[in-house]
Amino acid sequence: LKYCHEQRVPVVPQGGNTGMVGGSVPHRGDEVVLSLSRMNKIHSFDPTNAVIQCQSGCILDNLNEYLRPYGYVMPLDLGSSGSCQIGGNVATNAGGIRFLRYGSLRSNILGLKVVLANGDTIDLLNTLRKDNTGYDLKHLFIGSEGTLGVITDVCVATPMLLANSVTALLGLDYYEDAVAALSAARNKLGESIAAIEYWDSASMRISSTTQLGLGDCRFYLLVEVASNMNLESLEDRMMDFLGMYSKGVLATDEGKKKSLWKLRENIPLALKGMNGHTYKYDVSMSPHLFNQATLMVQHHLAAEYPHAQVFQYGHLADGNLHLNIWSPTFDQEIKNLAESTLYEFLRLHRGSISAEHGIGVLKAKHLNVSKSEKAIATMRNLKFLFDPYNILNPNKVLN
Amino acid sequence: LKYCHEQRVPVVPQGGNTGMVGGSVPHRGDEVVLSLSRMNKIHSFDPTNAVIQCQSGCILDNLNEYLRPYGYVMPLDLGSSGSCQIGGNVATNAGGIRFLRYGSLRSNILGLKVVLANGDTIDLLNTLRKDNTGYDLKHLFIGSEGTLGVITDVCVATPMLLANSVTALLGLDYYEDAVAALSAARNKLGESIAAIEYWDSASMRISSTTQLGLGDCRFYLLVEVASNMNLESLEDRMMDFLGMYSKGVLATDEGKKKSLWKLRENIPLALKGMNGHTYKYDVSMSPHLFNQATLMVQHHLAAEYPHAQVFQYGHLADGNLHLNIWSPTFDQEIKNLAESTLYEFLRLHRGSISAEHGIGVLKAKHLNVSKSEKAIATMRNLKFLFDPYNILNPNKVLN
Repeated sequence: LKYCHEQRVPVVPQGGNTGMVGGSVPHRGDEVVLSLSRMNKIHSFDPTNAVIQCQSGCILDNLNEYLRPYGYVMPLDLGSSGSCQIGGNVATNAGGIRFLRYGSLRSNILGLKVVLANGDTIDLLNTLRKDNTGYDLKHLFIGSEGTLGVITDVCVATPMLLANSVTALLGLDYYEDAVAALSAARNKLGESIAAIEYWDSASMRISSTTQLGLGDCRFYLLVEVASNMNLESLEDRMMDFLGMYSKGVLATDEGKKKSLWKLRENIPLALKGMNGHTYKYDVSMSPHLFNQATLMVQHHLAAEYPHAQVFQYGHLADGNLHLNIWSPTFDQEIKNLAESTLYEFLRLHRGSISAEHGIGVLKAKHLNVSKSEKAIATMRNLKFLFDPYNILNPNKVLN
Repeated sequence: LKYCHEQRVPVVPQGGNTGMVGGSVPHRGDEVVLSLSRMNKIHSFDPTNAVIQCQSGCILDNLNEYLRPYGYVMPLDLGSSGSCQIGGNVATNAGGIRFLRYGSLRSNILGLKVVLANGDTIDLLNTLRKDNTGYDLKHLFIGSEGTLGVITDVCVATPMLLANSVTALLGLDYYEDAVAALSAARNKLGESIAAIEYWDSASMRISSTTQLGLGDCRFYLLVEVASNMNLESLEDRMMDFLGMYSKGVLATDEGKKKSLWKLRENIPLALKGMNGHTYKYDVSMSPHLFNQATLMVQHHLAAEYPHAQVFQYGHLADGNLHLNIWSPTFDQEIKNLAESTLYEFLRLHRGSISAEHGIGVLKAKHLNVSKSEKAIATMRNLKFLFDPYNILNPNKVLN
């Protein structure tokens, strides 16, 4: 990096290269790609403090495998866990299905080592859970997508591997019921909640043809609780919650739990399998608004593009909607109309154009939907402070 | 601030003025004190999203009172909750006894509004749980003790008020048993853990003369679980944990729970009540090391100052030790010896000289114990970027 800094050679740091917005991909042609893959050493795990310390190139699944005999697990899980690297996860503040239970990856990172654009190393690699000594520099680098420094080592707080879980699927007729179920779940299931996933009937139709005994519903909620407490107590908690609803199924055995999860996991896979093109959006907003946002996009498309189909699914309790649109062929006009409708809605309601995927190169020009002019100006000042020659992942995040 | 910036007038932002390190106190004589007390408006609470939005001058207890009818509570609690203000809490990333359950205050802050040194306002006031759009600027201001900007409004994620809790006190003969109890508690009590507090026999002697039926023990652990699940299930979980220990008492009724908590709460009060001087340290390190650090300080003092007494207590699971030393009169030599011994130990073991109290003016000269030269240089660069005329809380954090 020192050399590249002196010679003004742009550098694209790259982990598992599994990002969704082109953050780890060279796109100009003059960049050096800096792979972290061989920095894959696990330094230590301290079971008392429950902190793992490792290099950035460690693959997420390998870290989970290393932790399993100790009875611990990484605080995040995502589809690409077999190839994504923890350094990339941290650089993008990756989300996923454990967010609801364990919070953001950011909030589980205790320490980092970072190499700056000029080759200087900042060692913030401590394993302390509490440390109020000056500005918390690590948060500048977490989620900055390799534009402010290259993360080489991380310390991550790890939760316990849980012995028992119970999964339920609710079928609901009104969107408001899905929203109300969030408070009810917090009340009845509290700290045992492990996941609340959500999808609509359009998503259900492409995901499964299996009869669930729920009849036709407009909305579905998958709710999971997990704990080390005995299975009966956990089941009791879930039954208490389920008792509030007329359409629900419960799963305690592995096979049935898996089949309920498949309904959720199949949605993006089914979209991928359909001939045609899928326009994918990863946005966040108040949970009140998912259906309203979806209906608005649907409404704007319906008049001119009757073949376009809109699907809503995502992490309802986190306010993270995956809005997907399908059309028989790619059509730039559909993309433009959907995007302008959705982003205008987000601007109005202070939503985010990227809940978990980041900005990368694909969303850089839309950053102003979610961030004010002053905030973006401050980001530019920080970028200039840390990387005055703009060698680190140029044109990513800020273009 | 714009005026002060132009005229180079130093400004000390002040919330409830309850800090422990002089961060909110003018100390030069030429500063304007900027009180946030009258910015005490609660903007809104959204029970679906469980987010409260309010101004910085709101007193913590008032926010709790406002939330109670909704069934929610602030994610932090500390001794000064009757007068500390949420803006000061955020500016210092305040800790307290809910840290173990809900994580740092930092990780519960969803949005901020900040006025910069030059009077510009950065509006980061969103209520989104997930937002990966560019650098997460709010983390620069959280914990920066009013040196980078003045926080005027905050959005805080709030946990549910819990109906039931069970408290237990363990008496242990070996320090290693206290450390081992952390993993055991995580395993048996898991997500229901609400607090794990720790103190030694010296602390117990000054805190209470009551017979607990535990006999004389060298170390004590107070463990609490809290949940909305029924009290019997919660008690079962705690009994399962307690069964592993020979000396333990259980409390389910309010009176007995309170009396166990009093043992912990009385320690600093008892120290305050003793004639003489108490030297107070708020440090963090791996939980393995509390006793070793204490013994080392004790050992260094014993030879020359046989009247000095050392007390250890704190939040063991968070790695946060409150090491207190008492002597019959204030003695600068004792302070110097204790401090140099403790800080050298922290430097060696990558501990923190301030787990939750911050740096303020009192610890600014020791910042280099916990932060590297490069890290401090980076902090100085950030300070200069945000406050080039050094008008915001000068000589605090960085001196």
